Amino acid sequence: MAGTPPPQTIPEATVARLPIYLRSLQEFAADENATISSGRLAELAGVNAAKVRKDLSYFGSYGTRGVGYDVRQLVVEIRRELGLTHDWPTAIVGMGNLGRALANYAGFSERGFSIAALLDTSDDKVGTVMGGTKVSHLDDMEGLVERHSISIGIIATPAIAAQDVAERMVGAGIESILNFAPTVISVPEGILVRKVDLAVELQILSFYQERRATDAGSAAG
Amino acid sequence: MAGTPPPQTIPEATVARLPIYLRSLQEFAADENATISSGRLAELAGVNAAKVRKDLSYFGSYGTRGVGYDVRQLVVEIRRELGLTHDWPTAIVGMGNLGRALANYAGFSERGFSIAALLDTSDDKVGTVMGGTKVSHLDDMEGLVERHSISIGIIATPAIAAQDVAERMVGAGIESILNFAPTVISVPEGILVRKVDLAVELQILSFYQERRATDAGSAAG
Repeated sequence: MAGTPPPQTIPEATVARLPIYLRSLQEFAADENATISSGRLAELAGVNAAKVRKDLSYFGSYGTRGVGYDVRQLVVEIRRELGLTHDWPTAIVGMGNLGRALANYAGFSERGFSIAALLDTSDDKVGTVMGGTKVSHLDDMEGLVERHSISIGIIATPAIAAQDVAERMVGAGIESILNFAPTVISVPEGILVRKVDLAVELQILSFYQERRATDAGSAAG
Repeated sequence: MAGTPPPQTIPEATVARLPIYLRSLQEFAADENATISSGRLAELAGVNAAKVRKDLSYFGSYGTRGVGYDVRQLVVEIRRELGLTHDWPTAIVGMGNLGRALANYAGFSERGFSIAALLDTSDDKVGTVMGGTKVSHLDDMEGLVERHSISIGIIATPAIAAQDVAERMVGAGIESILNFAPTVISVPEGILVRKVDLAVELQILSFYQERRATDAGSAAG
């Protein structure tokens, strides 16, 4: 392992870009012998080329001058870094519209996140099958987490239920939580939480749209 | 306007962090007279304090040494930058589980993105009411976009329909598109597209979870 930088040194922003690079590479070429320049990868991923080279250098990927990166090798390396070389069984709690959408979202299982448990508290939902998986009662979470070695929990409940569900997930042994509920949850130290806010992307769009409108107004005025 | 830097100089990464700052500020305090230090805001937003100060300085917000930023004023400034001082009528195309979840997502309307049109092609869905809005046929998009001044379109269709829907949106006069379909869409120059990939956040979680597992293994070994 000599010469390998310690894992702690990888900036969070780099980690956040790795899935984007992976997706870009997979969209770029089905051809297994393809190479890609940092410039092209940067364009596909929406960053600049220097950033791509810097990000990939953390993992010892430097490409070949004038040729670029071997796409297949880079995909393997990024997948390894992201822990995608094995399956991650996940549990989704809250089988409303969003939970159902997530249960049916092909992008999860394709990328190594299998749905091992769907959970809800409503009698209308428990026992029904969604996306090929039977919905269990939230009270059965502990047993399911143990049986399926679930380490990632996805919260798709209304805001009011999210904190309670998070605590039950942690109690059941789940160490990473993806929170779609529009609220902040508190968890003990050592538990990873990421919050997905579906309105953030709309706000980024409105920033640019607003400026475009303003610029057009100035030009016309 | 003398002294205001031109809009073009704001880095994309800064723009992407503005909605996070806004959400953090709104979660931080209902108290209208509150102040917040760059360190505290950084902690809430998950970045470092120097980055917060730099980001906010693009908008002429420097805070007061030893006091911090006036929360209310900062919220107003960020909302103005993001174009959230007026309503953005949006159209959602594709009323499957995800479309329905988005139509019912309170976080959109709360933050200025009203749903002006829901569209689908299925006879089962057209005419039904979702999240308080009647679903119209995709063929009626042009008229609805004009009548409601819709400038943002949200694609929640299966991958196979996304490109066609994007072209119809552009044809109807929509200039910004948020694409949830798991595919890349091509649009004419001048049209903004952002892609939301629900699996990206899971991959970031698995990166850290994988490292934790590896570190624990090393420590145990």
